Amino acid sequence: VTSSGLRAKGKSNLNASITVALDAMGGDFAPEMVVAGADLARVRYPNVKYIFFGDQSRIEPLLREHKVLQPLVTIHHTDEAIANDAKPSVALRSGRQSSMRLAIDAVASGQADCVVSAGNTGALMAMAKMVLKTLPGIHRPAIASFIPTAIGESVMLDLGANIECDAENLVQFAIMGAIFARTVLGIPEPTIGLLNVGAEQLKGNDVVKAAAEALRSQPIPGRFHGFIEGNDIPGGAVDVIVTDGFTGNIALKLAEGMGKLYSGFLQRSFRSSIMATLGYLLARSAFSKLRERVDPRRYNGGMFLGLSGVCVKSHGGIDAFGFANAIGVAVDMAVQGFNERISEELLRLAPAPAPAVQLQQ
Amino acid sequence: VTSSGLRAKGKSNLNASITVALDAMGGDFAPEMVVAGADLARVRYPNVKYIFFGDQSRIEPLLREHKVLQPLVTIHHTDEAIANDAKPSVALRSGRQSSMRLAIDAVASGQADCVVSAGNTGALMAMAKMVLKTLPGIHRPAIASFIPTAIGESVMLDLGANIECDAENLVQFAIMGAIFARTVLGIPEPTIGLLNVGAEQLKGNDVVKAAAEALRSQPIPGRFHGFIEGNDIPGGAVDVIVTDGFTGNIALKLAEGMGKLYSGFLQRSFRSSIMATLGYLLARSAFSKLRERVDPRRYNGGMFLGLSGVCVKSHGGIDAFGFANAIGVAVDMAVQGFNERISEELLRLAPAPAPAVQLQQ
Repeated sequence: VTSSGLRAKGKSNLNASITVALDAMGGDFAPEMVVAGADLARVRYPNVKYIFFGDQSRIEPLLREHKVLQPLVTIHHTDEAIANDAKPSVALRSGRQSSMRLAIDAVASGQADCVVSAGNTGALMAMAKMVLKTLPGIHRPAIASFIPTAIGESVMLDLGANIECDAENLVQFAIMGAIFARTVLGIPEPTIGLLNVGAEQLKGNDVVKAAAEALRSQPIPGRFHGFIEGNDIPGGAVDVIVTDGFTGNIALKLAEGMGKLYSGFLQRSFRSSIMATLGYLLARSAFSKLRERVDPRRYNGGMFLGLSGVCVKSHGGIDAFGFANAIGVAVDMAVQGFNERISEELLRLAPAPAPAVQLQQ
Repeated sequence: VTSSGLRAKGKSNLNASITVALDAMGGDFAPEMVVAGADLARVRYPNVKYIFFGDQSRIEPLLREHKVLQPLVTIHHTDEAIANDAKPSVALRSGRQSSMRLAIDAVASGQADCVVSAGNTGALMAMAKMVLKTLPGIHRPAIASFIPTAIGESVMLDLGANIECDAENLVQFAIMGAIFARTVLGIPEPTIGLLNVGAEQLKGNDVVKAAAEALRSQPIPGRFHGFIEGNDIPGGAVDVIVTDGFTGNIALKLAEGMGKLYSGFLQRSFRSSIMATLGYLLARSAFSKLRERVDPRRYNGGMFLGLSGVCVKSHGGIDAFGFANAIGVAVDMAVQGFNERISEELLRLAPAPAPAVQLQQ
């Protein structure tokens, strides 16, 4: 499998008809931003169809305001929705008729090709794991996301699905992240970095050392760059940043928080004097480009990797523009056959073992 | 012990004569920046004396260029220096005559009140631990540093001394960090946050959950705020951020890297058009304030907390201004009796156990 082949194959599928299952009730501004987000996504993916799971009486009036979207949408009514503070275990047990669960079910049944929800992350992961199941050969699914860098963007995983990880988990995250970078971002030979406290081989805990050893010695999609440190993330040192869910979650939220801190500092500077405000007015168009470049809505979408079905979590507080980006990445994953590439790669890396010798009874 | 008492006591010591042991050969720009850094620190602390450990033939000519500093300095000559890439174990064994080791020895012998080095972090921690020993009652020393926030600055620890930590370690880091915030930053009731993947009590691994439980139930200096998330760090949610050395190291370097990323973006924006450049010229003085506010040299200094002696690690690539700040924090810790406060607090929190019953032979 050459990477150029992968990209071409992906492109040839772009006209395939894709159906997206949407949890219309998930997120702080649902269902309004779900409908408006789907309408924005429609511009980029005119052939995509949508199934909205949620309260028909609230969705229908919204669709009437989005006339071009309307014929592409089916509504599947349900009164139930998963609360933002619901425990995953409770959501699993008593949320079988929830908008979130029914949207996932639609992917499992083949009615939809992917699902997007801005609802409760823990509940979404628990339900997606139970309903879609983990891909054969994958031990644990992971959550991946984009992170802006000096030279573009990187993919980082895991972002919180697995608070504790062993070396084998990290190796599988590396493989899944690399295939994501290949198939969705179109990077033929993605570089992979393992997040650590230093770049030297001796640094870190036993888990990262064992994972690095495995990534150095076994064939993987892309190229293992070795350990990277925290400052290498914004530097854009690698395409794929691999870490456990504890560190990854803290790192992603810290990076987002630092972005907000600096834009706050910037605003304060421009407002600090009349000269500075005049300066801002002159530099405004340059800054609107910068704002666009680091807009967190552009990087919205937590991709659940390692499940037998495409599931993307949107930020809960996102608007329609951000939600459209989450839909976009889900569609890309479905169109480019992300899960099929993972399965192919796992098969290539670890051919099926010979049938076990039957023990004589 | 009231906090106002602590501050007052600290202040009354400000005229005490303090001697700083300096590793004159540590850091990328040593010994030039060490001499220039001490000269800058002299302005703020005119009564402080210095012992320079290192190559006399290189230090003496530099001192001749800093005439006011010269009478405050003693040179202790040594030919040896610890290489930046030296393994801590090798530095311990064969670095007994190194500038770094002799500077630490000077604190152990009482010749100096604190030591500052911009050399090899691992070697400095290993030597400081062996020579100065851990404070009675403290299981593991930690590295703490400042981090700029939206509302000021916070202290974060551990930053890499302990890659793996148990709950008891995290609790002790919280206590040491809080006493640092009290005595050196002058915050009477510092708030303490435990870094985690979510704010809810159920989130996280067993170690952070057990540490949070202990911090909630036992008396501590300051106030335990609970779990904080990555984005709470730049937000300035707490005065003291507690985490293990793996996560802390990655978080600190990531925060520094994000700072560089944004200042790079800013520069590029201002250079992107003539209008933007004109805007920059108008807003320049506002931006020089911002640059000062987030200048990493202001936050230079990795404080080794939990040792029977004050030891501060400066960034290796720092200039004289940054090095002077590292000297400043070491002097503050010595003057304010940071280690004495830690010992007092440990005694107060866990009174000495009754003498163990002698086992009959």
